Amino acid sequence: MAKSEAPIFRQLFESQSCTYTYLLADKNTRDAVIIDPVLETLDRDVKLVQELGLNLKVAVNTHCHADHITSTGLMKKKIEGLKSAISKHSGASADIQLSEGEEITFGKHHLTVRETPGHTNGCVTLVLGDESMAFTGDALLIRGCGRTDFQQGSPRRLYQSVHEVIFKLPEHCLLYPAHDYKGQTVTTVGEERKYNPRLTKNLEEFVNIMDNLNLPNPKKIDIAVPANLVCGLHDL
Amino acid sequence: MAKSEAPIFRQLFESQSCTYTYLLADKNTRDAVIIDPVLETLDRDVKLVQELGLNLKVAVNTHCHADHITSTGLMKKKIEGLKSAISKHSGASADIQLSEGEEITFGKHHLTVRETPGHTNGCVTLVLGDESMAFTGDALLIRGCGRTDFQQGSPRRLYQSVHEVIFKLPEHCLLYPAHDYKGQTVTTVGEERKYNPRLTKNLEEFVNIMDNLNLPNPKKIDIAVPANLVCGLHDL
Repeated sequence: MAKSEAPIFRQLFESQSCTYTYLLADKNTRDAVIIDPVLETLDRDVKLVQELGLNLKVAVNTHCHADHITSTGLMKKKIEGLKSAISKHSGASADIQLSEGEEITFGKHHLTVRETPGHTNGCVTLVLGDESMAFTGDALLIRGCGRTDFQQGSPRRLYQSVHEVIFKLPEHCLLYPAHDYKGQTVTTVGEERKYNPRLTKNLEEFVNIMDNLNLPNPKKIDIAVPANLVCGLHDL
Repeated sequence: MAKSEAPIFRQLFESQSCTYTYLLADKNTRDAVIIDPVLETLDRDVKLVQELGLNLKVAVNTHCHADHITSTGLMKKKIEGLKSAISKHSGASADIQLSEGEEITFGKHHLTVRETPGHTNGCVTLVLGDESMAFTGDALLIRGCGRTDFQQGSPRRLYQSVHEVIFKLPEHCLLYPAHDYKGQTVTTVGEERKYNPRLTKNLEEFVNIMDNLNLPNPKKIDIAVPANLVCGLHDL
Protein backbone atom coordinates (compact mmCIF):
# COMPACT_ATOMS: atom_id res chain seq x y z
CA MET A 1 0.00 0.00 0.00
CA ALA A 2 1.52 3.34 -0.97
CA LYS A 3 2.08 5.76 1.87
CA SER A 4 -0.45 8.23 0.53
CA GLU A 5 -3.13 5.56 0.90
CA ALA A 6 -2.25 4.68 4.51
CA PRO A 7 -4.83 5.69 7.11
CA ILE A 8 -4.38 8.58 9.51
CA PHE A 9 -2.81 6.99 12.55
CA ARG A 10 -2.30 8.21 16.12
CA GLN A 11 -0.82 6.40 19.09
CA LEU A 12 -1.80 7.91 22.43
CA PHE A 13 -0.55 7.05 25.91
CA GLU A 14 -2.22 7.04 29.33
CA SER A 15 0.60 7.21 31.86
CA GLN A 16 -1.14 5.89 34.99
CA SER A 17 -1.91 2.45 33.56
CA CYS A 18 0.71 2.71 30.77
CA THR A 19 -2.04 2.04 28.23
CA TYR A 20 -1.85 2.83 24.53
CA THR A 21 -4.95 4.06 22.74
CA TYR A 22 -4.96 4.04 18.94
CA LEU A 23 -6.90 6.18 16.52
CA LEU A 24 -7.18 5.21 12.84
CA ALA A 25 -9.05 7.10 10.16
CA ASP A 26 -9.59 7.21 6.42
CA LYS A 27 -8.00 10.34 4.98
CA ASN A 28 -10.86 10.95 2.57
CA THR A 29 -14.09 9.91 4.28
CA ARG A 30 -12.68 10.78 7.77
CA ASP A 31 -14.41 7.66 9.15
CA ALA A 32 -12.47 6.53 12.20
CA VAL A 33 -11.99 3.76 14.76
CA ILE A 34 -10.51 4.11 18.25
CA ILE A 35 -8.90 1.16 20.03
CA ASP A 36 -8.68 0.83 23.84
CA PRO A 37 -9.60 4.36 24.93
CA VAL A 38 -9.08 5.11 28.65
CA LEU A 39 -11.43 6.97 30.99
CA GLU A 40 -8.72 9.35 32.28
CA THR A 41 -7.86 10.58 28.76
CA LEU A 42 -11.41 10.80 27.41
CA ASP A 43 -11.34 14.58 26.99
CA ARG A 44 -7.96 14.57 25.22
CA ASP A 45 -9.13 11.88 22.82
CA VAL A 46 -12.52 13.43 22.04
CA LYS A 47 -10.84 16.80 21.39
CA LEU A 48 -8.37 15.20 18.99
CA VAL A 49 -11.17 13.43 17.11
CA GLN A 50 -12.92 16.78 16.74
CA GLU A 51 -9.79 18.71 15.72
CA LEU A 52 -8.94 16.14 13.07
CA GLY A 53 -12.50 16.37 11.77
CA LEU A 54 -13.14 12.65 12.13
CA ASN A 55 -16.38 10.68 12.12
CA LEU A 56 -15.65 8.24 14.92
CA LYS A 57 -17.73 5.16 14.15
CA VAL A 58 -16.45 2.43 16.46
CA ALA A 59 -14.71 2.33 19.86
CA VAL A 60 -13.30 -1.16 20.26
CA ASN A 61 -11.64 -2.80 23.24
CA THR A 62 -9.11 -5.54 22.55
CA HIS A 63 -10.42 -7.26 25.73
CA CYS A 64 -12.07 -6.59 29.08
CA HIS A 65 -9.22 -4.72 30.79
CA ALA A 66 -8.35 -5.26 34.45
CA ASP A 67 -5.99 -2.34 34.96
CA HIS A 68 -7.97 0.65 33.77
CA ILE A 69 -11.55 1.68 33.02
CA THR A 70 -12.50 2.04 29.38
CA SER A 71 -13.96 5.32 28.16
CA THR A 72 -16.16 3.73 25.49
CA GLY A 73 -19.40 4.22 27.41
CA LEU A 74 -18.81 7.90 28.18
CA MET A 75 -17.37 8.53 24.73
CA LYS A 76 -20.66 7.33 23.22
CA LYS A 77 -22.41 10.10 25.14
CA LYS A 78 -20.07 12.69 23.63
CA ILE A 79 -19.90 11.44 20.04
CA GLU A 80 -23.18 10.82 18.27
CA GLY A 81 -23.53 7.55 16.43
CA LEU A 82 -20.45 5.99 18.03
CA LYS A 83 -20.78 2.24 18.66
CA SER A 84 -18.85 0.18 21.20
CA ALA A 85 -17.33 -3.17 20.23
CA ILE A 86 -15.69 -6.07 22.05
CA SER A 87 -15.25 -9.81 21.54
CA LYS A 88 -18.37 -11.93 22.04
CA HIS A 89 -16.17 -14.15 24.24
CA SER A 90 -15.36 -11.31 26.63
CA GLY A 91 -18.56 -11.57 28.64
CA ALA A 92 -18.89 -7.78 28.34
CA SER A 93 -21.80 -5.91 26.83
CA ALA A 94 -21.28 -3.66 23.81
CA ASP A 95 -23.16 -2.59 20.70
CA ILE A 96 -21.10 -4.92 18.51
CA GLN A 97 -20.06 -8.39 19.65
CA LEU A 98 -17.02 -9.32 17.58
CA SER A 99 -16.24 -12.76 16.14
CA GLU A 100 -13.20 -14.28 14.42
CA GLY A 101 -12.70 -12.93 10.91
CA GLU A 102 -15.18 -10.07 11.26
CA GLU A 103 -14.17 -6.74 9.74
CA ILE A 104 -14.42 -3.29 11.32
CA THR A 105 -14.60 -0.92 8.36
CA PHE A 106 -13.61 2.77 8.32
CA GLY A 107 -13.74 4.34 4.88
CA LYS A 108 -11.79 2.20 2.45
CA HIS A 109 -9.84 0.56 5.27
CA HIS A 110 -10.74 -2.20 7.67
CA LEU A 111 -9.45 -4.02 10.72
CA THR A 112 -9.87 -7.79 10.76
CA VAL A 113 -10.73 -9.39 14.10
CA ARG A 114 -8.43 -12.27 15.00
CA GLU A 115 -9.21 -14.10 18.22
CA THR A 116 -6.08 -14.39 20.37
CA PRO A 117 -7.28 -15.71 23.76
CA GLY A 118 -5.01 -16.63 26.64
CA HIS A 119 -4.65 -13.40 28.64
CA THR A 120 -8.47 -13.49 28.79
CA ASN A 121 -11.01 -15.56 26.85
CA GLY A 122 -12.13 -12.54 24.88
CA CYS A 123 -8.81 -11.13 23.67
CA VAL A 124 -8.60 -10.10 20.03
CA THR A 125 -5.83 -8.85 17.78
CA LEU A 126 -6.98 -6.30 15.22
CA VAL A 127 -5.14 -6.52 11.90
CA LEU A 128 -5.19 -3.71 9.33
CA GLY A 129 -6.42 -4.92 5.95
CA ASP A 130 -3.02 -4.86 4.23
CA GLU A 131 -1.37 -6.54 7.26
CA SER A 132 1.06 -3.62 7.63
CA MET A 133 0.04 -3.17 11.27
CA ALA A 134 -1.78 -5.09 14.01
CA PHE A 135 -3.03 -4.18 17.47
CA THR A 136 -2.29 -7.03 19.82
CA GLY A 137 -3.92 -5.86 23.04
CA ASP A 138 -2.37 -7.79 25.94
CA ALA A 139 -1.75 -10.97 23.93
CA LEU A 140 1.67 -9.81 22.84
CA LEU A 141 3.60 -6.93 24.39
CA ILE A 142 6.96 -5.62 23.19
CA ARG A 143 9.43 -8.31 24.33
CA GLY A 144 6.71 -9.59 26.66
CA CYS A 145 3.08 -10.70 26.89
CA GLY A 146 0.04 -10.26 29.07
CA ARG A 147 -0.19 -12.21 32.32
CA THR A 148 -2.32 -15.36 32.47
CA ASP A 149 -3.07 -15.75 36.18
CA PHE A 150 -6.60 -14.31 36.39
CA GLN A 151 -9.68 -13.57 34.24
CA GLN A 152 -9.69 -16.98 32.48
CA GLY A 153 -5.97 -16.68 31.81
CA SER A 154 -4.33 -19.68 30.19
CA PRO A 155 -0.66 -19.76 29.22
CA ARG A 156 -1.27 -22.66 26.83
CA ARG A 157 -3.97 -20.77 24.95
CA LEU A 158 -1.86 -17.60 24.88
CA TYR A 159 1.14 -19.47 23.47
CA GLN A 160 -1.05 -20.94 20.74
CA SER A 161 -2.64 -17.57 19.94
CA VAL A 162 0.71 -15.86 19.54
CA HIS A 163 2.34 -18.64 17.53
CA GLU A 164 -0.68 -19.54 15.36
CA VAL A 165 -2.05 -16.04 14.72
CA ILE A 166 0.33 -13.18 15.51
CA PHE A 167 3.61 -14.83 14.53
CA LYS A 168 2.03 -15.89 11.22
CA LEU A 169 1.55 -12.28 10.16
CA PRO A 170 4.19 -10.89 7.75
CA GLU A 171 7.65 -10.40 9.23
CA HIS A 172 7.56 -6.59 8.80
CA CYS A 173 4.03 -6.17 10.17
CA LEU A 174 4.17 -3.48 12.87
CA LEU A 175 2.75 -4.67 16.19
CA TYR A 176 1.17 -2.15 18.53
CA PRO A 177 0.43 -3.42 22.05
CA ALA A 178 -2.09 -2.20 24.63
CA HIS A 179 0.68 -1.40 27.07
CA ASP A 180 4.34 -0.69 27.43
CA TYR A 181 6.21 0.05 30.62
CA LYS A 182 9.62 0.97 29.21
CA GLY A 183 8.84 3.77 26.75
CA GLN A 184 8.78 1.52 23.69
CA THR A 185 6.01 2.23 21.18
CA VAL A 186 6.06 -0.47 18.52
CA THR A 187 7.69 -3.73 17.46
CA THR A 188 7.47 -6.09 14.47
CA VAL A 189 6.52 -9.73 14.00
CA GLY A 190 10.10 -10.52 12.95
CA GLU A 191 11.57 -8.97 16.07
CA GLU A 192 9.24 -10.74 18.47
CA ARG A 193 9.73 -14.08 16.74
CA LYS A 194 13.44 -13.60 17.36
CA TYR A 195 13.75 -11.64 20.60
CA ASN A 196 10.63 -12.12 22.73
CA PRO A 197 12.14 -13.58 25.90
CA ARG A 198 9.00 -15.62 26.71
CA LEU A 199 7.44 -16.55 23.39
CA THR A 200 10.69 -17.83 21.87
CA LYS A 201 10.72 -20.57 24.53
CA ASN A 202 8.99 -23.92 23.97
CA LEU A 203 5.47 -24.40 25.30
CA GLU A 204 6.40 -26.12 28.57
CA GLU A 205 9.08 -23.55 29.38
CA PHE A 206 6.61 -20.76 28.59
CA VAL A 207 3.94 -22.27 30.86
CA ASN A 208 6.49 -22.60 33.63
CA ILE A 209 7.52 -18.93 33.28
CA MET A 210 3.91 -17.73 33.23
CA ASP A 211 2.88 -19.87 36.22
CA ASN A 212 5.67 -18.44 38.34
CA LEU A 213 5.48 -14.70 37.74
CA ASN A 214 3.97 -14.12 41.22
CA LEU A 215 2.66 -10.69 40.29
CA PRO A 216 0.38 -8.69 42.58
CA ASN A 217 -3.12 -8.08 41.22
CA PRO A 218 -3.58 -4.83 39.24
CA LYS A 219 -4.53 -2.09 41.69
CA LYS A 220 -7.81 -1.32 39.94
CA ILE A 221 -8.95 -4.86 39.11
CA ASP A 222 -11.96 -4.89 41.48
CA ILE A 223 -13.23 -1.63 40.02
CA ALA A 224 -12.07 -1.96 36.43
CA VAL A 225 -13.36 -5.41 35.51
CA PRO A 226 -16.99 -4.90 36.63
CA ALA A 227 -16.96 -1.44 35.01
CA ASN A 228 -15.49 -2.71 31.76
CA LEU A 229 -18.14 -5.43 31.53
CA VAL A 230 -20.57 -2.57 30.87
CA CYS A 231 -18.43 -0.17 28.75
CA GLY A 232 -16.90 1.48 31.80
CA LEU A 233 -20.14 3.08 32.93
CA HIS A 234 -20.41 1.15 36.18
CA ASP A 235 -21.32 3.50 39.02
CA LEU A 236 -20.83 6.57 36.85
CA MET B 1 7.67 8.12 -1.27
CA ALA B 2 6.20 4.61 -1.31
CA LYS B 3 5.84 2.99 2.08
CA SER B 4 8.34 0.27 1.22
CA GLU B 5 10.99 2.96 0.78
CA ALA B 6 10.31 4.69 4.09
CA PRO B 7 13.05 4.36 6.69
CA ILE B 8 12.79 2.14 9.76
CA PHE B 9 11.41 4.44 12.41
CA ARG B 10 11.14 4.13 16.18
CA GLN B 11 9.83 6.60 18.71
CA LEU B 12 11.04 5.94 22.27
CA PHE B 13 10.00 7.64 25.50
CA GLU B 14 11.90 8.47 28.69
CA SER B 15 9.25 8.94 31.36
CA GLN B 16 11.17 10.97 33.97
CA SER B 17 11.82 13.95 31.69
CA CYS B 18 9.04 13.03 29.22
CA THR B 19 11.62 13.06 26.41
CA TYR B 20 11.19 11.39 23.04
CA THR B 21 14.18 9.74 21.42
CA TYR B 22 13.95 8.83 17.72
CA LEU B 23 15.75 6.16 15.78
CA LEU B 24 15.77 6.20 11.98
CA ALA B 25 17.49 3.71 9.72
CA ASP B 26 17.79 2.70 6.10
CA LYS B 27 16.12 -0.69 5.55
CA ASN B 28 18.84 -1.89 3.21
CA THR B 29 22.17 -0.48 4.39
CA ARG B 30 20.98 -0.47 8.06
CA ASP B 31 22.77 2.87 8.53
CA ALA B 32 21.02 4.73 11.33
CA VAL B 33 20.68 8.04 13.18
CA ILE B 34 19.43 8.56 16.73
CA ILE B 35 17.93 11.87 17.84
CA ASP B 36 17.96 13.12 21.45
CA PRO B 37 18.95 9.95 23.30
CA VAL B 38 18.69 10.13 27.11
CA LEU B 39 21.20 8.87 29.68
CA GLU B 40 18.60 6.89 31.68
CA THR B 41 17.51 4.86 28.64
CA LEU B 42 20.96 4.28 27.15
CA ASP B 43 20.91 0.51 27.67
CA ARG B 44 17.42 0.11 26.16
CA ASP B 45 18.41 2.14 23.11
CA VAL B 46 21.75 0.42 22.52
CA LYS B 47 20.06 -2.99 22.83
CA LEU B 48 17.44 -2.02 20.27
CA VAL B 49 20.09 -0.77 17.85
CA GLN B 50 21.85 -4.12 18.18
CA GLU B 51 18.67 -6.23 17.87
CA LEU B 52 17.63 -4.36 14.73
CA GLY B 53 21.10 -4.93 13.30
CA LEU B 54 21.74 -1.24 12.71
CA ASN B 55 24.95 0.65 12.00
CA LEU B 56 24.38 3.69 14.17
CA LYS B 57 26.38 6.48 12.55
CA VAL B 58 25.23 9.70 14.21
CA ALA B 59 23.71 10.65 17.57
CA VAL B 60 22.31 14.13 17.21
CA ASN B 61 20.83 16.45 19.79
CA THR B 62 18.26 18.98 18.63
CA HIS B 63 19.75 21.40 21.20
CA CYS B 64 21.61 21.55 24.50
CA HIS B 65 18.89 20.17 26.78
CA ALA B 66 18.26 21.60 30.25
CA ASP B 67 15.95 18.91 31.61
CA HIS B 68 17.88 15.69 31.05
CA ILE B 69 21.41 14.49 30.35
CA THR B 70 22.14 13.24 26.85
CA SER B 71 23.54 9.75 26.38
CA THR B 72 25.54 10.63 23.25
CA GLY B 73 28.90 10.60 25.05
CA LEU B 74 28.41 7.22 26.71
CA MET B 75 26.74 5.78 23.62
CA LYS B 76 29.91 6.55 21.66
CA LYS B 77 31.81 4.31 24.08
CA LYS B 78 29.40 1.45 23.40
CA ILE B 79 28.98 1.80 19.62
CA GLU B 80 32.14 1.94 17.56
CA GLY B 81 32.35 4.68 14.95
CA LEU B 82 29.36 6.61 16.32
CA LYS B 83 29.69 10.38 15.99
CA SER B 84 27.92 13.02 18.08
CA ALA B 85 26.32 16.05 16.43
CA ILE B 86 24.77 19.31 17.60
CA SER B 87 24.26 22.82 16.22
CA LYS B 88 27.38 24.96 15.97
CA HIS B 89 25.33 27.66 17.70
CA SER B 90 24.69 25.50 20.78
CA GLY B 91 28.00 26.21 22.44
CA ALA B 92 28.35 22.47 23.04
CA SER B 93 31.18 20.27 21.85
CA ALA B 94 30.46 17.34 19.52
CA ASP B 95 32.16 15.54 16.66
CA ILE B 96 29.95 17.28 14.11
CA GLN B 97 28.97 20.96 14.42
CA LEU B 98 25.79 21.37 12.39
CA SER B 99 24.87 24.36 10.20
CA GLU B 100 21.72 25.44 8.37
CA GLY B 101 21.01 23.27 5.34
CA GLU B 102 23.54 20.57 6.21
CA GLU B 103 22.46 16.97 5.62
CA ILE B 104 22.83 14.01 7.97
CA THR B 105 22.83 10.99 5.67
CA PHE B 106 21.86 7.41 6.59
CA GLY B 107 21.80 5.04 3.61
CA LYS B 108 19.67 6.57 0.89
CA HIS B 109 17.89 8.86 3.34
CA HIS B 110 18.93 12.10 4.94
CA LEU B 111 17.83 14.62 7.54
CA THR B 112 18.22 18.28 6.62
CA VAL B 113 19.27 20.64 9.40
CA ARG B 114 17.04 23.68 9.71
CA GLU B 115 18.00 26.23 12.33
CA THR B 116 15.01 27.06 14.55
CA PRO B 117 16.41 29.15 17.44
CA GLY B 118 14.31 30.75 20.16
CA HIS B 119 14.12 28.10 22.89
CA THR B 120 17.93 28.21 22.77
CA ASN B 121 20.34 29.72 20.23
CA GLY B 122 21.35 26.30 18.97
CA CYS B 123 17.96 24.66 18.37
CA VAL B 124 17.54 22.80 15.10
CA THR B 125 14.64 21.04 13.42
CA LEU B 126 15.65 17.94 11.49
CA VAL B 127 13.59 17.38 8.34
CA LEU B 128 13.49 14.02 6.55
CA GLY B 129 14.50 14.36 2.87
CA ASP B 130 10.99 13.89 1.47
CA GLU B 131 9.51 16.29 4.09
CA SER B 132 7.14 13.56 5.32
CA MET B 133 8.39 14.03 8.88
CA ALA B 134 10.37 16.51 10.95
CA PHE B 135 11.86 16.47 14.44
CA THR B 136 11.24 19.80 16.06
CA GLY B 137 13.08 19.43 19.37
CA ASP B 138 11.72 22.04 21.80
CA ALA B 139 10.94 24.63 19.12
CA LEU B 140 7.47 23.26 18.55
CA LEU B 141 5.68 20.87 20.89
CA ILE B 142 2.24 19.32 20.27
CA ARG B 143 -0.16 22.23 20.87
CA GLY B 144 2.68 24.02 22.62
CA CYS B 145 6.32 25.13 22.36
CA GLY B 146 9.49 25.20 24.38
CA ARG B 147 9.94 27.89 27.03
CA THR B 148 12.03 30.96 26.27
CA ASP B 149 13.01 32.22 29.71
CA PHE B 150 16.55 30.85 30.06
CA GLN B 151 19.51 29.59 27.96
CA GLN B 152 19.38 32.48 25.44
CA GLY B 153 15.61 32.05 25.09
CA SER B 154 13.84 34.58 22.89
CA PRO B 155 10.11 34.43 22.18
CA ARG B 156 10.55 36.67 19.11
CA ARG B 157 13.15 34.35 17.57
CA LEU B 158 11.06 31.29 18.42
CA TYR B 159 7.95 32.77 16.81
CA GLN B 160 9.94 33.54 13.65
CA SER B 161 11.51 30.05 13.59
CA VAL B 162 8.16 28.31 13.84
CA HIS B 163 6.39 30.54 11.33
CA GLU B 164 9.23 30.85 8.81
CA VAL B 165 10.60 27.31 8.95
CA ILE B 166 8.31 24.73 10.56
CA PHE B 167 4.95 26.13 9.43
CA LYS B 168 6.32 26.35 5.86
CA LEU B 169 6.76 22.58 5.68
CA PRO B 170 3.97 20.67 3.86
CA GLU B 171 0.62 20.56 5.64
CA HIS B 172 0.72 16.79 6.15
CA CYS B 173 4.32 16.68 7.35
CA LEU B 174 4.37 14.72 10.61
CA LEU B 175 6.00 16.67 13.45
CA TYR B 176 7.75 14.78 16.22
CA PRO B 177 8.70 16.87 19.27
CA ALA B 178 11.41 16.29 21.88
CA HIS B 179 8.79 16.13 24.64
CA ASP B 180 5.16 15.55 25.39
CA TYR B 181 3.52 15.61 28.78
CA LYS B 182 0.03 14.40 27.84
CA GLY B 183 0.67 11.09 26.10
CA GLN B 184 0.53 12.52 22.60
CA THR B 185 3.12 11.22 20.16
CA VAL B 186 2.88 13.18 16.95
CA THR B 187 1.16 16.10 15.22
CA THR B 188 1.18 17.67 11.75
CA VAL B 189 2.06 21.08 10.34
CA GLY B 190 -1.60 21.59 9.38
CA GLU B 191 -2.85 20.88 12.87
CA GLU B 192 -0.37 23.17 14.60
CA ARG B 193 -1.02 25.99 12.15
CA LYS B 194 -4.69 25.70 13.11
CA TYR B 195 -4.77 24.59 16.75
CA ASN B 196 -1.52 25.54 18.48
CA PRO B 197 -2.81 27.76 21.29
CA ARG B 198 0.34 29.89 21.39
CA LEU B 199 1.69 29.98 17.84
CA THR B 200 -1.66 30.88 16.26
CA LYS B 201 -1.54 34.18 18.17
CA ASN B 202 0.12 37.27 16.71
CA LEU B 203 3.72 38.04 17.64
CA GLU B 204 2.99 40.49 20.43
CA GLU B 205 0.39 38.22 22.05
CA PHE B 206 2.82 35.32 21.79
CA VAL B 207 5.62 37.31 23.44
CA ASN B 208 3.25 38.32 26.21
CA ILE B 209 2.23 34.70 26.83
CA MET B 210 5.83 33.48 26.84
CA ASP B 211 7.03 36.29 29.13
CA ASN B 212 4.41 35.43 31.71
CA LEU B 213 4.58 31.65 32.06
CA ASN B 214 6.34 31.93 35.45
CA LEU B 215 7.62 28.37 35.30
CA PRO B 216 10.05 26.98 37.86
CA ASN B 217 13.46 26.03 36.46
CA PRO B 218 13.80 22.39 35.31
CA LYS B 219 14.96 20.32 38.28
CA LYS B 220 18.11 19.11 36.56
CA ILE B 221 19.16 22.35 34.83
CA ASP B 222 22.29 22.90 36.92
CA ILE B 223 23.50 19.38 36.21
CA ALA B 224 22.11 18.84 32.72
CA VAL B 225 23.32 21.96 30.91
CA PRO B 226 27.01 21.69 31.89
CA ALA B 227 26.90 17.94 31.17
CA ASN B 228 25.23 18.40 27.80
CA LEU B 229 27.82 20.95 26.75
CA VAL B 230 30.22 18.00 26.66
CA CYS B 231 27.97 15.18 25.33
CA GLY B 232 26.67 14.31 28.78
CA LEU B 233 30.00 13.03 30.07
CA HIS B 234 30.49 15.76 32.68
CA ASP B 235 31.56 14.20 35.97
CA LEU B 236 30.95 10.65 34.73
